Amino acid sequence: MTIRAVVWNENVHETENATVAKVYPDGIHGAIAAALNANDGITATTATLQEPEHGLTAARLAETDVLLWWGHAAHGDVSDEVVERVAEAVWGGMGLILLHSAHFAKIFKRLMGTPCNLTWREAGERERLWVTSRNHPIAAGIGDFFELENEEMYGEPFGVPEPLETVFVSWFQGGEVFRSGLTYKRGAGNVFYFRPGHETYPTYFDDNVKRVLTNAVKWAHNPAARVADVTDAPNVPVDTALEPLTARGGSLHARGEEGFR
Amino acid sequence: MTIRAVVWNENVHETENATVAKVYPDGIHGAIAAALNANDGITATTATLQEPEHGLTAARLAETDVLLWWGHAAHGDVSDEVVERVAEAVWGGMGLILLHSAHFAKIFKRLMGTPCNLTWREAGERERLWVTSRNHPIAAGIGDFFELENEEMYGEPFGVPEPLETVFVSWFQGGEVFRSGLTYKRGAGNVFYFRPGHETYPTYFDDNVKRVLTNAVKWAHNPAARVADVTDAPNVPVDTALEPLTARGGSLHARGEEGFR
Amino acid sequence: MTIRAVVWNENVHETENATVAKVYPDGIHGAIAAALNANDGITATTATLQEPEHGLTAARLAETDVLLWWGHAAHGDVSDEVVERVAEAVWGGMGLILLHSAHFAKIFKRLMGTPCNLTWREAGERERLWVTSRNHPIAAGIGDFFELENEEMYGEPFGVPEPLETVFVSWFQGGEVFRSGLTYKRGAGNVFYFRPGHETYPTYFDDNVKRVLTNAVKWAHNPAARVADVTDAPNVPVDTALEPLTARGGSLHARGEEGFR
Amino acid sequence: MTIRAVVWNENVHETENATVAKVYPDGIHGAIAAALNANDGITATTATLQEPEHGLTAARLAETDVLLWWGHAAHGDVSDEVVERVAEAVWGGMGLILLHSAHFAKIFKRLMGTPCNLTWREAGERERLWVTSRNHPIAAGIGDFFELENEEMYGEPFGVPEPLETVFVSWFQGGEVFRSGLTYKRGAGNVFYFRPGHETYPTYFDDNVKRVLTNAVKWAHNPAARVADVTDAPNVPVDTALEPLTARGGSLHARGEEGFR
Repeated sequence: MTIRAVVWNENVHETENATVAKVYPDGIHGAIAAALNANDGITATTATLQEPEHGLTAARLAETDVLLWWGHAAHGDVSDEVVERVAEAVWGGMGLILLHSAHFAKIFKRLMGTPCNLTWREAGERERLWVTSRNHPIAAGIGDFFELENEEMYGEPFGVPEPLETVFVSWFQGGEVFRSGLTYKRGAGNVFYFRPGHETYPTYFDDNVKRVLTNAVKWAHNPAARVADVTDAPNVPVDTALEPLTARGGSLHARGEEGFR
Repeated sequence: MTIRAVVWNENVHETENATVAKVYPDGIHGAIAAALNANDGITATTATLQEPEHGLTAARLAETDVLLWWGHAAHGDVSDEVVERVAEAVWGGMGLILLHSAHFAKIFKRLMGTPCNLTWREAGERERLWVTSRNHPIAAGIGDFFELENEEMYGEPFGVPEPLETVFVSWFQGGEVFRSGLTYKRGAGNVFYFRPGHETYPTYFDDNVKRVLTNAVKWAHNPAARVADVTDAPNVPVDTALEPLTARGGSLHARGEEGFR
Repeated sequence: MTIRAVVWNENVHETENATVAKVYPDGIHGAIAAALNANDGITATTATLQEPEHGLTAARLAETDVLLWWGHAAHGDVSDEVVERVAEAVWGGMGLILLHSAHFAKIFKRLMGTPCNLTWREAGERERLWVTSRNHPIAAGIGDFFELENEEMYGEPFGVPEPLETVFVSWFQGGEVFRSGLTYKRGAGNVFYFRPGHETYPTYFDDNVKRVLTNAVKWAHNPAARVADVTDAPNVPVDTALEPLTARGGSLHARGEEGFR
Repeated sequence: MTIRAVVWNENVHETENATVAKVYPDGIHGAIAAALNANDGITATTATLQEPEHGLTAARLAETDVLLWWGHAAHGDVSDEVVERVAEAVWGGMGLILLHSAHFAKIFKRLMGTPCNLTWREAGERERLWVTSRNHPIAAGIGDFFELENEEMYGEPFGVPEPLETVFVSWFQGGEVFRSGLTYKRGAGNVFYFRPGHETYPTYFDDNVKRVLTNAVKWAHNPAARVADVTDAPNVPVDTALEPLTARGGSLHARGEEGFR
C-alpha cells in the first residue's frame, strides 16, 4: 500500500515572476511531486490555490495521507473554511508538512497558536543544515549535515512553540541560525516544518532536500483510520459510568443534554 | 512589587442559575480574586464578559501580569478581537491560567491549535488530583495528592498538544482519569490549564485549590518587559548582515521591501 | 523484512514461585515472544539472566532491532557491563521496551537519569488504561481505554523525566493514577515504558496488552543502520573547517590531539 | 532571602597551564563566584576537586540551592559517591548548571542517560549565541543574540535527550551550529546546560555571560524544601487504600514487606 501524498502550492510566483518560472517550469508543486513519486512507497498528486476549494475538498482530504504545503505571496487568499477543514483532517490523523515560507501560512499559525515569525534576508547565501537528532527517520540517509549553496536566510527567534523534536538546525553565511526541521503533533496528526525552499533557487531539485521530503512523508503517515468526530465532547451519563456511581450535588444539565461550547 | 492578576469570568450562571448564585454570591471571579488577594505578593482585580471590551482593553492587558480565565456557557459571545488581543499579550509575556470549562474558551483553542475536547459527566463525584511533578512550583505545599469530594468529571482523551509538563493527573470515582494540570509556553507567555472548578460546587473555596491558583499565578508571571512588536518579521538587509556577505542569485524583493504575510 | 525482537526476562519467579510458574509455564518471556511471533512482521526470540552474558552478547545486540525487558527480583544481578552494552545499542538506534517492574531495572534508571520510583500495592485490583494520545501508533486498534481486572497498583508520583509523549494513563480501583505508557528517545533509540505485567496475573495473555506490545515493537524499530562510534567526540581541525578559518588565541591542545573525557 | 550558589571547579588547568592561569588568576570558580556575588539576591561560594569529598559533603549540598559545575581534564577523578550524592540532591530539588566542557562531567552524563558527545575545535573563533526562546528568564536582558569573539567550537550532533526548552543556539565562524542553552528537569531539580567557557579565553568575564549565569541561578532555584527520601518506593497496604478495596488474586509479597529493587 502506497502513501497518498498531496503537494499543495499557491502557484503564484511560478506564473508571475520570470525568475521563478524558469527555475520551476512545472511549479514547485510539480517538482516536489516528481521527487516523491520517484519513491515506490509514495503516490503524490498536486493541488493549487486556483482550483475550486483550492483543490482540497473534504473528499480529497479523506483520501490524503500526507499533505505538503507551500505558500508565500497569497496566504491571505486561502479560505478560512479550507484551513479549518485541513486542521480537522490533521487532528484526525493526516500528516502535514509545511515548507519554507509556509511558516506564515494560515494553517501553520492555526495549528501552532503562535505568531510563527522570524527574521529573513534574500541574498542567495550559503545554508548548512546540521542534523541535531542522529538517525531520526526524517534525517535517514543524511550524514551530519548538508549544504545549500544559495538560499534565503531565516533567523531566530522563530515564533513557534517548543517542538516535540528538533531535527535540523541551520547555519547561515551571514551569521544567523535557525531551527530548520521541527516536529509537532496535533491530535493524531504528525506535523513537520522544513525550512529550505525559496522560490528563486532550485532547492527542491537538491538530492538531500528530496530525500528529507521523502523521509518526512513516510514519517508523517499515520496508517490508522482517521479519528471520527474528532472535535466531539461526549457526555458520559451517570448510569453508564464504568464504576458504580450515584449523582450528588447541584446540577446544570438535564440528563443527556449537550454540553456548552 | 506585587504581581498584578486579573480574574476574568463570563459571569453568566452566577446571575441566571439559583444553585450557582448560592455557591458563588460574589461570582467565581470574586471568589478567586479574594483567594489571590490573601497573598501578599499578588494584587488581583476582576473583569467580566459584560463590561465594555469584556474589561480587557489594550491598556488593561498592558498592566496585567497574569490573566485567569473562567468561561462555560458564553464562549461564543467573546469577541474575536479581544481573543487576538489576549493572544498577543500572552506571546509578549503575559501569563494565562485557564480554568475548568475554559478548555473550550476561544483563547485556549486559539493558543493550543487543537480541539481541546474531552468527555464529561456532572454527577458530583469524588476527584483526587495526584501530583505527577513533585515540588513543581505550581504544586508547592501540596503533598502527593488532594481530594475534591464533589466535582464534574472530565475524561481522557483530552484534545490538547503534549504539554511542557504534566503537573496533576486526576482520578475520578466513576472510572476516568484526566491530565488536570498542564503547562505550556506560547511565545514569552507561560500558560497553565487547571481542571477543577465546576460552578455548582464550592471548588474555588477549597484550600488546596486556592493554593494551586496562588502558586500558578506566581509561576506564570514573567517579570521581563512585554516583547514589543511580537508578530514582526523584520528583513535583515545584506549590507547590515553580521558577517560580510554579497548578494547572489535570483531575487523577489527590492531592498528594504516588506515580506509577504 | 521482519523486525527482530528479543524478549529478555530475569526468569526468577517463574522457577521459584508456584503461583507464577502456574500462570506462566513458559515464562513471561515465552508468553510475550509467542504473542509477538503471532504477527507476520516480527520475529521474536528470548534471552534470560541465567544465560552467559545474560544472553545479550555484542553480536546478539547487533542483530536485535527491539529489546523488551522484564525484571523484578534480580535487578542487582544484572552485570553493569551488559547494562552499558545495552545502553550503547539504544543510543545507536536499538528500540527498548521496559515492562512493569523494569521501572527499577538498571538499564531504565541508566537511561532516565532519575530514581524511577513509585508507590505500589499488590491487591489484584482493577486497572483501566486510558489512551491519552488518540491513534498513537502504540495505541493502534485500542479504543479510548481497556481494562485489566487484576493488576498490581503503581501510583504517582513516578520518578521519571517528562516523557516525549504520554500514551496511557491508568486508573486504579484503590484510588491511584499512573502514567502507564511513556515514550522517550535516547540517542537514535526509541524507548517505551509500559506499566502492566505483574507476574502473578495473566496480563501478558490479554489481547489488548499483546496488541500494545506488538504496536510498540513496530513503533520502536528504527530501520536505519546503527550509529557507529556513538560516543565519539571528534576533533575538527582548523584546516578542515567547513568555512575558511585561522586559529586565534590561547590553546590547550596540540593539533590532532584527543579531547579530555 | 538570598539564593545560595556553589561554584564547583576541578581547578586543574588554572594551576598547571600558564595560559589559563593568566586568564583566570582566581580560577574559573573564583571568576564565576565574583560575578554571581555582584547580584544582591545571590550568595556564591566555591568548591574544588582537591578539597575533601571535592567540597561537596552531604551537609554542604543540603545548604546549596544551586550548584554550578565546571570540569574538563579531570572528569575521571570525581568520585562516584559524590556524583550519586549530587544526583540525589538534584532529584530532591537542588538546581544544577553545567558549564562548557562539563558536557562530559560524570554528573551530566548520569542525569542525561546519553553520551553527551559533540564535535569540537579549539581555534579561538567567533561564536554568536542566538536566543531561541524570547524573554525566557535565563535570557532576560539579552537581546536577540550576543557574541564571543574567541571561543572553542562545539558542533552538533550533541548527544543529549530532547530538552524541555532550547534557550540558545550558537553560530560558529567555522561553519557549525550548537544548541548552547538547554533546560531539563530531573526530579524536582532544574538543570541547565550552558555551552561557552573554554578556559583559555576570558569568557566568564563577559557581561552577557555573567548575566546569563546570574539569570540561570535564579531560574534553577526551587524554593521548596528538598524532597525527603527521594528514591523511596513505598508500599500502600490494602487496608490503607484511599478507596475501599479487597485483595484478590495471587501474591508475591507478605503484608508490609519491602518491594524488590
